[in-house]
Amino acid sequence: MPDILHRVGIKSPSTESTYTALSTIKGLSEWWTNDTKGNSAVGGEMQFRFGPAGGFDMKVLELDRDERVLWQVVDGPAEWIGTRVGFELKQEGDYAIVLLKHMGWREPVEFMHHCSTKWATFLMSLKELIETGKGKPHPDDVLIDNWN
Amino acid sequence: MPDILHRVGIKSPSTESTYTALSTIKGLSEWWTNDTKGNSAVGGEMQFRFGPAGGFDMKVLELDRDERVLWQVVDGPAEWIGTRVGFELKQEGDYAIVLLKHMGWREPVEFMHHCSTKWATFLMSLKELIETGKGKPHPDDVLIDNWN
Repeated sequence: MPDILHRVGIKSPSTESTYTALSTIKGLSEWWTNDTKGNSAVGGEMQFRFGPAGGFDMKVLELDRDERVLWQVVDGPAEWIGTRVGFELKQEGDYAIVLLKHMGWREPVEFMHHCSTKWATFLMSLKELIETGKGKPHPDDVLIDNWN
Repeated sequence: MPDILHRVGIKSPSTESTYTALSTIKGLSEWWTNDTKGNSAVGGEMQFRFGPAGGFDMKVLELDRDERVLWQVVDGPAEWIGTRVGFELKQEGDYAIVLLKHMGWREPVEFMHHCSTKWATFLMSLKELIETGKGKPHPDDVLIDNWN
């Protein structure tokens, strides 16, 4: 099954701030969508909304402090349901490295192409958040195509 | 074999300008790397260079006017050699849609994660080029991590 893969490096002395941005409602609301709610603990569910476009509900499967976050998509677009989104963190010199894997797409549909590019711009928003204090979460996100 | 997939939509009345930016040395030099040389006709080879980081040699396999461009990587990083890079174009309303597929990676190595994010930022550079007249080719490209 095809996966979406990405890598960004964030100028940061450790992975701690990035982990916080990936594992708390406040952190997630500062780079992905400002309409983020729910329970970010393992076993909890979070709701990410993007206005009229809808959004995603994620169940938190794993949290390894400063190292790894893993979610399962429990509601949202049909293509997303059942897929998993993982973030792996590690420090390399002055950079906190984030590897994103959005795993388990059933088919490489056109929507998957869109989501891949959109993930890249959101990861760049995460990078900006940690490096400058301000990300570009929805509704201030970078628009990539006619699907937004 | 895993593929890198992306989709951008470029505000443009047709796919013609985008096709030109994908199928000519001048066009490619305005969004990917300013150090682009070679023969962009079918069967020709093009050299894309990114300073000390090296670059890629691509053989042009297919050119379907305003619709499709396909390359094979003939030299560059070991992970890239033998892979294929395809761009499919279509018009949807006010947008020229580009689907990128970088096909045939042997393994989903960490470098593939990097290249996926980097392709996204270069496609955003292509979008900027067509929409504003100015892209962000190397050496003015958007840096995403400690590998650049």
